[in-house]
Amino acid sequence: MQDRFGAFVPGPVIHRLPHSSGPLSGLSFSVKDLFDLAGGVTGCGNPDWAATHGAAEANAWAVDALLGAGASLTGKTITDEISLGLLGINRFYGTPLNPRAPDRVPGGSSSGSASAVAGGVVDIALGTDSGGSVRIPASFCGTYGLRPTHGRISVAGMMTQAPSFDTVGYFTRDAQTFGRVGAVLLADQVPDSLPSEIVVAADCFAIADEPIRLALQPVVDRLREAVATTVSPLAEGDLLDWARHQRVLQKSEFHATFRDWIDRVNPRFSSEVAGAFADDGRIPSEDLAAAGTFREGTVRRLHGLLDGRRMLCLPTSPILPIARNARLSEMRAAVHRIVDLTAIAGLTGLPQVNLPVATSGLIPVGLSLIGWRGGDAALVAAARTLARDFSIGLFEEPS
Amino acid sequence: MQDRFGAFVPGPVIHRLPHSSGPLSGLSFSVKDLFDLAGGVTGCGNPDWAATHGAAEANAWAVDALLGAGASLTGKTITDEISLGLLGINRFYGTPLNPRAPDRVPGGSSSGSASAVAGGVVDIALGTDSGGSVRIPASFCGTYGLRPTHGRISVAGMMTQAPSFDTVGYFTRDAQTFGRVGAVLLADQVPDSLPSEIVVAADCFAIADEPIRLALQPVVDRLREAVATTVSPLAEGDLLDWARHQRVLQKSEFHATFRDWIDRVNPRFSSEVAGAFADDGRIPSEDLAAAGTFREGTVRRLHGLLDGRRMLCLPTSPILPIARNARLSEMRAAVHRIVDLTAIAGLTGLPQVNLPVATSGLIPVGLSLIGWRGGDAALVAAARTLARDFSIGLFEEPS
Repeated sequence: MQDRFGAFVPGPVIHRLPHSSGPLSGLSFSVKDLFDLAGGVTGCGNPDWAATHGAAEANAWAVDALLGAGASLTGKTITDEISLGLLGINRFYGTPLNPRAPDRVPGGSSSGSASAVAGGVVDIALGTDSGGSVRIPASFCGTYGLRPTHGRISVAGMMTQAPSFDTVGYFTRDAQTFGRVGAVLLADQVPDSLPSEIVVAADCFAIADEPIRLALQPVVDRLREAVATTVSPLAEGDLLDWARHQRVLQKSEFHATFRDWIDRVNPRFSSEVAGAFADDGRIPSEDLAAAGTFREGTVRRLHGLLDGRRMLCLPTSPILPIARNARLSEMRAAVHRIVDLTAIAGLTGLPQVNLPVATSGLIPVGLSLIGWRGGDAALVAAARTLARDFSIGLFEEPS
Repeated sequence: MQDRFGAFVPGPVIHRLPHSSGPLSGLSFSVKDLFDLAGGVTGCGNPDWAATHGAAEANAWAVDALLGAGASLTGKTITDEISLGLLGINRFYGTPLNPRAPDRVPGGSSSGSASAVAGGVVDIALGTDSGGSVRIPASFCGTYGLRPTHGRISVAGMMTQAPSFDTVGYFTRDAQTFGRVGAVLLADQVPDSLPSEIVVAADCFAIADEPIRLALQPVVDRLREAVATTVSPLAEGDLLDWARHQRVLQKSEFHATFRDWIDRVNPRFSSEVAGAFADDGRIPSEDLAAAGTFREGTVRRLHGLLDGRRMLCLPTSPILPIARNARLSEMRAAVHRIVDLTAIAGLTGLPQVNLPVATSGLIPVGLSLIGWRGGDAALVAAARTLARDFSIGLFEEPS
């Protein structure tokens, strides 16, 4: 496998043979450099992290799950530094190419994983998603991607960022493989099924840029042929409040995670990442309490709405991938916009899939479904069923 | 010359022969990597600065002045990234050793210049001083160091940081060489002379840590034998106000200098330096105006006090050099303390010399004299006269 897209961490490409044959035999996967591989240092996208951490003693749970299911590992993929970023830019190891839009960012932080899968370097890749790090690169590179229910897939052996947000996710090019990998990582059946109803989140579409809305509208129209749909706003108040509170909570947690290491090591960061630590991250307790209360409200609201039958439909990202050579100020504005939509599953801990269903010109535009708590298999099943039976999906499915 | 102290920028050591023979013939000098050398890139202590700037067309003025006076150039010295730092820590190129206190920081940002001179690698080194970048490494490494009157020595070919604060300074080990170099860079006579009176700034000593006060008290006592001294506070109000306003003004200027480059390049910085750009640097105009008014007041006050006869005496730094392996939080606290004293010459644009006159244990402790506007030659002369006639100085003077 040639790393034509600069998706792999520099250095010799890592290989691991499957533990046994299984449902994924014959498939290859890459793993984001946030997952432990026994005997090596998990570099987490930053040279000072790599230099101040020892070798892992064991493989991460998700790595062993795929090796145990017959897949073979090829390559550790580049991540945004210490997982902080949604654009896929890494100033130390290089920004992986977006194979579908080479002058645009690949999305991050699971940038190399999305790049390697979209470019056909491997069949599957593991990523992590705390604030959107699987969903956004899946949308930008045009792949399937799952952010599971929080806690549904073990995060053992994965770098911690913000514990109440951190999840293990994965990417595939086609929906059939997406289903097979889901069955392994979820340790569950992924039967053919569709939800009873899809709620099109009107306010989520309304805040998306016009190219996103124009690209997704025909897909939503086709969805109606497959499933009963209703259109209604997600938020009772201002949708942007969801992101505002997500930022507070996630920041509070990742500061707690990294504070001591930064103080000890004085690590180097790109200015983009350093900006996340611009202040000391100590958030007034009343703001934290307000965000916590708000979060509980969103959980209740979506638990009521997505009651085991309904799924929510929204754009994965409100914006197209920005240019690779964008300015820092554009990067920051883009990240801010993106979180306006990724905060929904983040706050509520609900599962979300990106469906690679549309383009604007040649640039991928992803559509998302958010499922009910624990409804991960149903979500993956919906993705596969829509692709197979309704041709909703960009990639040709294996026959 | 071996770079035993890690003072030089990594790579082949640069050499330039003198333009002609002159008063500095036989002496060697190093130059901080903030000064242009024709044909090379001025790296400014940061790889992303180096990668985004072209080769210099001409030597900096100060470089040509020393080459023209017969000195030979050996080595570009490490600086804190883009001159922002007072401790001498550089996470990209290494932190130069403090030859006099190997487990302590060398001081910065002219870290490599002070290290090379203190270690005997060269006789002279050029540095820059905006917020203390010559004075502090001179104090920490135990060398002579001049920050000239603002505007007195041409900054042509030197990286801009904060234009109303930026100065060209230099280091030597002994006072006689200090005088010879001063005569060249100031293009002036440096006659033997002492001021009529030295004002010991009581409030500046009062905010210094006890080891500093204990180390400097015997020197101040010896000063009384050379010059009439009075003891009085420098500030009419709170001395710490000087530093508070200096921080506002210098920050406003260096943000203006670097803002567009950072936005364009998304450069990598150590967390220490990134902290300087934690916010957008846009300071409320009323704060800027207040700082400007305060600055005018300090200029008036010191113009009245240092009227061409008097010099002000104070500790160069209120603290000892901190440990090389200090935490980021300790580094930040140390820088904050240091500026409490370096702000005085910074705000007023007055010349200041560090005299290597004391130690605490084996750690150098510098004493400073601040002179009147344009009284640079008199200040250098005082340093030399005190060393020669009153043995105030740590290094043995050449006979």
